[in-house]
Amino acid sequence: MAYKQIWKPCTMLNPVPAVMVSCGVFPLQCNIITVAWAGTVCSHPAMCSISIRKERFSYKIIESTRKFVINLVNRELVGVADWCGVKSGRDFDKFAYCGLTPLKAETSDCPIIAQSPVNIECSVKQIIPLGSHDMFLAEVDSVSVADDLIDKKTGALNMSDAGLVAYSHGKYYGLGQELGRFGFSVKKQQKK
Amino acid sequence: MAYKQIWKPCTMLNPVPAVMVSCGVFPLQCNIITVAWAGTVCSHPAMCSISIRKERFSYKIIESTRKFVINLVNRELVGVADWCGVKSGRDFDKFAYCGLTPLKAETSDCPIIAQSPVNIECSVKQIIPLGSHDMFLAEVDSVSVADDLIDKKTGALNMSDAGLVAYSHGKYYGLGQELGRFGFSVKKQQKK
Repeated sequence: MAYKQIWKPCTMLNPVPAVMVSCGVFPLQCNIITVAWAGTVCSHPAMCSISIRKERFSYKIIESTRKFVINLVNRELVGVADWCGVKSGRDFDKFAYCGLTPLKAETSDCPIIAQSPVNIECSVKQIIPLGSHDMFLAEVDSVSVADDLIDKKTGALNMSDAGLVAYSHGKYYGLGQELGRFGFSVKKQQKK
Repeated sequence: MAYKQIWKPCTMLNPVPAVMVSCGVFPLQCNIITVAWAGTVCSHPAMCSISIRKERFSYKIIESTRKFVINLVNRELVGVADWCGVKSGRDFDKFAYCGLTPLKAETSDCPIIAQSPVNIECSVKQIIPLGSHDMFLAEVDSVSVADDLIDKKTGALNMSDAGLVAYSHGKYYGLGQELGRFGFSVKKQQKK
């Protein structure tokens, strides 16, 4: 139990997902923005939030279409995810530049990133201004999952095979050692 | 690029942080709830959101005090974090049962978990009902960081030394291989 230093308010919740959010109208306008301020906020209905600065190119697109797709990032995609977080869709066709394939979402005209292992299609329910960022509060409409992550016999999703990436204090990490499954602390006790 | 299966809406954004949220009034009432639906939602001011089911014991506590603390979870704490997500504060004094030390927060009477490497003290600004969960939208008031994570010479925070834990599709993972620092994809290009 170490002594603590007291810091001013700052964004210190780690690790977070670093996800590529795709937006626009397929195939006319397809853009990608990488966001770290993203999360699940409700189970039923399944809801996500992403926070975006007003000045970002994707802000007005999502504000206008009210649709976006959260594309999960794996080790193969970490380079393009980083690049899409640094560069602006004002200057680049990010799909083309990164060699990513846009496909039409199942439930809207929003593009999804074909190479991402999981695509979460969302409809914006509310935009909440907070300060530097506005929060886009959204309901999940549909989820696409790469076939090769699904056990052919059981139908179970082997998410650990996806090679997902976490972001912590400015660095990207692969997921490392599995430390336990939800509820493992209770199962341990029952075995005693 | 694998073929995709289309699923109904579900909570598939991974990995997420699994954090222990402490609440109550130190030292009279100190409780802990582990939440996976937590994230940063704004940089300036620094803001976090956590989502909690109405029926959870901590819901009414945080609704009443309007304060909570997000305590980051490392490998040493993953067992108690899991346990605090399964068990209810109605039945257990979770601090005592888990051998955790409550301390008074810097900016409120809310308890913090001394053993956690980073404590993020928050004030609730808004409670947004969403469905199964309500979202507690909060501003960060202060952050406490374990002294041994801070480089004595430079003052830099070595968050990678904290051994933080991510949660993905029902399993806890340590952070693994470092894959790059924010902006690495652009620096690579400049070296060419």
